[in-house]
Amino acid sequence: MQEEFEKLERVRVEALDEILGKPFKVLNDGFIRVVDYMGSDQSIVQAARVSYGKGTKQVRQDRGLIRYLMRHKHTTPFEMCEIKFHIRVPMDAWRQWIRHRTANVNEYSTRYSIAIDSAYETEPSMWRKQSKDNKQGSEGFLDERIGAELSKQEKEMHRIVREIYQKRVELGVAREQARKDLPLSTYTEAYWKIDLHNLLHFLRLRMDSHAQYEIRQYAQIIGNEIVSKWVPLTWEAFNDFQLNTTGFSALEMEILKNMLSDNPVAALALAENAGWLRKKDGKLVKSLERIEFEQKLQKLNLQVPWEE
Amino acid sequence: MQEEFEKLERVRVEALDEILGKPFKVLNDGFIRVVDYMGSDQSIVQAARVSYGKGTKQVRQDRGLIRYLMRHKHTTPFEMCEIKFHIRVPMDAWRQWIRHRTANVNEYSTRYSIAIDSAYETEPSMWRKQSKDNKQGSEGFLDERIGAELSKQEKEMHRIVREIYQKRVELGVAREQARKDLPLSTYTEAYWKIDLHNLLHFLRLRMDSHAQYEIRQYAQIIGNEIVSKWVPLTWEAFNDFQLNTTGFSALEMEILKNMLSDNPVAALALAENAGWLRKKDGKLVKSLERIEFEQKLQKLNLQVPWEE
Amino acid sequence: MQEEFEKLERVRVEALDEILGKPFKVLNDGFIRVVDYMGSDQSIVQAARVSYGKGTKQVRQDRGLIRYLMRHKHTTPFEMCEIKFHIRVPMDAWRQWIRHRTANVNEYSTRYSIAIDSAYETEPSMWRKQSKDNKQGSEGFLDERIGAELSKQEKEMHRIVREIYQKRVELGVAREQARKDLPLSTYTEAYWKIDLHNLLHFLRLRMDSHAQYEIRQYAQIIGNEIVSKWVPLTWEAFNDFQLNTTGFSALEMEILKNMLSDNPVAALALAENAGWLRKKDGKLVKSLERIEFEQKLQKLNLQVPWEE
Amino acid sequence: MQEEFEKLERVRVEALDEILGKPFKVLNDGFIRVVDYMGSDQSIVQAARVSYGKGTKQVRQDRGLIRYLMRHKHTTPFEMCEIKFHIRVPMDAWRQWIRHRTANVNEYSTRYSIAIDSAYETEPSMWRKQSKDNKQGSEGFLDERIGAELSKQEKEMHRIVREIYQKRVELGVAREQARKDLPLSTYTEAYWKIDLHNLLHFLRLRMDSHAQYEIRQYAQIIGNEIVSKWVPLTWEAFNDFQLNTTGFSALEMEILKNMLSDNPVAALALAENAGWLRKKDGKLVKSLERIEFEQKLQKLNLQVPWEE
Repeated sequence: MQEEFEKLERVRVEALDEILGKPFKVLNDGFIRVVDYMGSDQSIVQAARVSYGKGTKQVRQDRGLIRYLMRHKHTTPFEMCEIKFHIRVPMDAWRQWIRHRTANVNEYSTRYSIAIDSAYETEPSMWRKQSKDNKQGSEGFLDERIGAELSKQEKEMHRIVREIYQKRVELGVAREQARKDLPLSTYTEAYWKIDLHNLLHFLRLRMDSHAQYEIRQYAQIIGNEIVSKWVPLTWEAFNDFQLNTTGFSALEMEILKNMLSDNPVAALALAENAGWLRKKDGKLVKSLERIEFEQKLQKLNLQVPWEE
Repeated sequence: MQEEFEKLERVRVEALDEILGKPFKVLNDGFIRVVDYMGSDQSIVQAARVSYGKGTKQVRQDRGLIRYLMRHKHTTPFEMCEIKFHIRVPMDAWRQWIRHRTANVNEYSTRYSIAIDSAYETEPSMWRKQSKDNKQGSEGFLDERIGAELSKQEKEMHRIVREIYQKRVELGVAREQARKDLPLSTYTEAYWKIDLHNLLHFLRLRMDSHAQYEIRQYAQIIGNEIVSKWVPLTWEAFNDFQLNTTGFSALEMEILKNMLSDNPVAALALAENAGWLRKKDGKLVKSLERIEFEQKLQKLNLQVPWEE
Repeated sequence: MQEEFEKLERVRVEALDEILGKPFKVLNDGFIRVVDYMGSDQSIVQAARVSYGKGTKQVRQDRGLIRYLMRHKHTTPFEMCEIKFHIRVPMDAWRQWIRHRTANVNEYSTRYSIAIDSAYETEPSMWRKQSKDNKQGSEGFLDERIGAELSKQEKEMHRIVREIYQKRVELGVAREQARKDLPLSTYTEAYWKIDLHNLLHFLRLRMDSHAQYEIRQYAQIIGNEIVSKWVPLTWEAFNDFQLNTTGFSALEMEILKNMLSDNPVAALALAENAGWLRKKDGKLVKSLERIEFEQKLQKLNLQVPWEE
Repeated sequence: MQEEFEKLERVRVEALDEILGKPFKVLNDGFIRVVDYMGSDQSIVQAARVSYGKGTKQVRQDRGLIRYLMRHKHTTPFEMCEIKFHIRVPMDAWRQWIRHRTANVNEYSTRYSIAIDSAYETEPSMWRKQSKDNKQGSEGFLDERIGAELSKQEKEMHRIVREIYQKRVELGVAREQARKDLPLSTYTEAYWKIDLHNLLHFLRLRMDSHAQYEIRQYAQIIGNEIVSKWVPLTWEAFNDFQLNTTGFSALEMEILKNMLSDNPVAALALAENAGWLRKKDGKLVKSLERIEFEQKLQKLNLQVPWEE
């Protein structure tokens, strides 16, 4: 005997409707804008309640339920929301973007059309220095005078390469081949559609301080300007339980417990045993695992229990 | 230099809005209803035009473009539409349904809640006979007097099994264990969300005459009652170029060409060479490939060029 | 100018080769066995080094690299390993299993063949009680005398239902329909193929104490008997950094820091502000977030800073 | 009561083992080589037989079964085989390659390491002309004297851009930023792992004459040199039933039937009704659907039944 269902209206989120279609500028000539969406915080709750039955219906418990789902990685209800973006982004950042496979994509075709005549140009003050510690990162900026030189050189190179591209096209070279030497900084455009669970995964990786600067600019706008308006309860829970969480391994918990129980000897023995305290020439050998633990202790204002 | 964008309204499809939330009855106690959706025929066109540039803008070409995409299996623009269903379906059919992996699912949990007290019961006239030709199919129906016996027996069995389930729950057995002997005919419910490309793939398989009767009932409603209203141009193209297409292999084309060029000898030689004409005891040995070709000839009103 | 490559041998893992094809028994009549595999710990390292370049080649750093990848959720190198299982499992557990979508599956077809004549039977001592705290869990066991009654009843029911199934088949009912009332406890078989990253995800969910007992038995064998032999470095890292990790949210870190800095007032204020300390009738209102934090404090042997 | 299983050996394919690790050269400085694999034609048969039961065991039926699966798009057994490649490919072709989402990828990181110092250079005779009919294709070649000019210009441009890249790196610019203007023709490397079903899908699209020349070179080697050795029965079936199949829509079948039944009037009426015979200035208006049908008739050596 099945229940009666009433006619439904589509779920609407007013705060998102207000920015529908509006482009947020990113980098020198990129943008991102929401084209359409489906679902809301309430859709997540609704989907979870199909699974969990109907015992927990009160509206005031929605926030608690969403936080519970997020904390315990019950991810399927978040897949019930979907969003579609229109973006313009340098091909180099797009190369990273497209590595997120669980999404739907239609990209501007430079086989079919003339390549977008715009490239991502770097300002004199924005040339980043290679990071010493992080082989795949950057830190700080080059001297602006050197930067000015590099920016000028870049602009000139962009001009030359574009001219070569144009000339090829004019001579009748197929577009699919003429484009072969376009710089990675050339802008492309795409429609990109993804469910909320996978979008949050994208944001966790791409809002991270280790993500490359360029894609991080897009991710921050998606997170702070768009997702925050679309599903505010989910956004809060995501920040609390995903973005800003510190994880301790079983070993780290054990060392911490011994430190807090005034048992530094046991703590040291555990670290020693894990190979964290090997020395060379009287100094601790570099150990990423130890260093990461030390950083966690710092967050707790705790002294490192060994000599550094 | 980027263009100006205007504010967008969400894409709406009036004919689909009218049935939003309305349950279509399926089987004795199942249903399917649309909960929400995103996109329309126009969204497909819009996504395709990001790829193909802006040369082909006229509205009257939308149909042609959608048909072109469908014919040539340019599938990504169809992924730009998304739909969410609420369904009630016997677990047995759900087992087939869930094999379509590219979808989002939240199912009613019989760990968390008491199992739905409803099972799919078969009418006396609806007991299907095992197909002789198709080891995984059925054809025709059992005599209704035998069917009446089977239906009565089923009803009684359902009652007994449900009582055992209830008794277990009352004795305090965990729901996750009490359910272990529920019949596959027990109804379950789920939210199911999928993009249009993958939905069409589901429909191609599940509307097919070889699909099991039960899931076919759901698929036919999704196709004929829902997708047809949601994206009418896509639905038409899907029927023309996917559902009702006949494929000829290179060999079949070659045989056909020779038949139509009054060259039956060459046609026979090709069939012979493919091993289609092997005989045993003076009769053609069964060959699925030959039989399938004969069926295609029949559609063209053509005589089979060999003795059957 | 490209480097010279030597001929390759396929990667072999001797410890896994030794158990190839060997069925591990699970439940009363289930099993799981490895049919084939591809890759090893070294394949993960090799794939990571394509990404990271060639600066870090020494063999003794393999363990460190794998641990780094695992700790920082660089998951793609783990996708470079693949394994294929043959399993026999009750349909009820299979329903949960199949929800992991990123895998390849071929299941025994009860449309094509007679259903496997074996069901998962519960021993008198193994009827689990419904958990009070966890609506979707169990804890402890029913009295064995009651259990004996339930087991006897189950056996009898299985016999009856199987007889009905057999009778239907004998009367000529199509197998696809005859099976409709088989109990969920009926065994099915399948080939299941999955990459290591997704397998670890499966294990994280299904080896967890909240996973249902039945599927947990399979997961434990996969983890402890198979993955541990196949990729021992990965298995160690997975245990250290995934299975046994405790996460603290930003708020929890802040409260903890204040507790450890002898600033209980600030710690209490934070908890108060988070709504953790609301009282009703003089007792703290139930708050899952507070309770989970208290459990983490317990692991560190720390006193809860508020009156419970 | 379960059967006894014997110990298994891993499936080996000798013809593939012989080329394991061997690089096939592609373009001027690219390659593709097989690193590892899992499964064979027999694994496909084995997986299918789990589904279909054990009635069809004879070895001589393997070919028939694989052909049946391929013809009727029963794709899951083909997912039971997996292969891993190491490739070096221009970024431009890689951009297309990576759009195939159901695969595992580890790419050379130009954040972590200096970009590969090699670009895809075009020979004077290999500059392709833009296709007139196919907006996203090419046909024929430019005059070689013009080509020589373009090739010289390209070489010079590659040199300049590389120098700028090197200079940035020397000045301390982060590698992740220094690379931003590398041409799309720069080579990258990757491990690419995929199951056979999805690989065949890749080949169907990328061996097609409409695929871009560059990626087609890779696809042809994968198909003709690798898959053909790995799974010869599957490769044969794929060629017969996927690569070289001609599909006729219901309308086309109906027109064809009428043509072959000496009923040209009915054939014309159907075409007219489909809008294929609209004229402008006394000439048939361009209709892709009609043109594609005419091409199919040509394959059958049949006259078009209307005036062109």
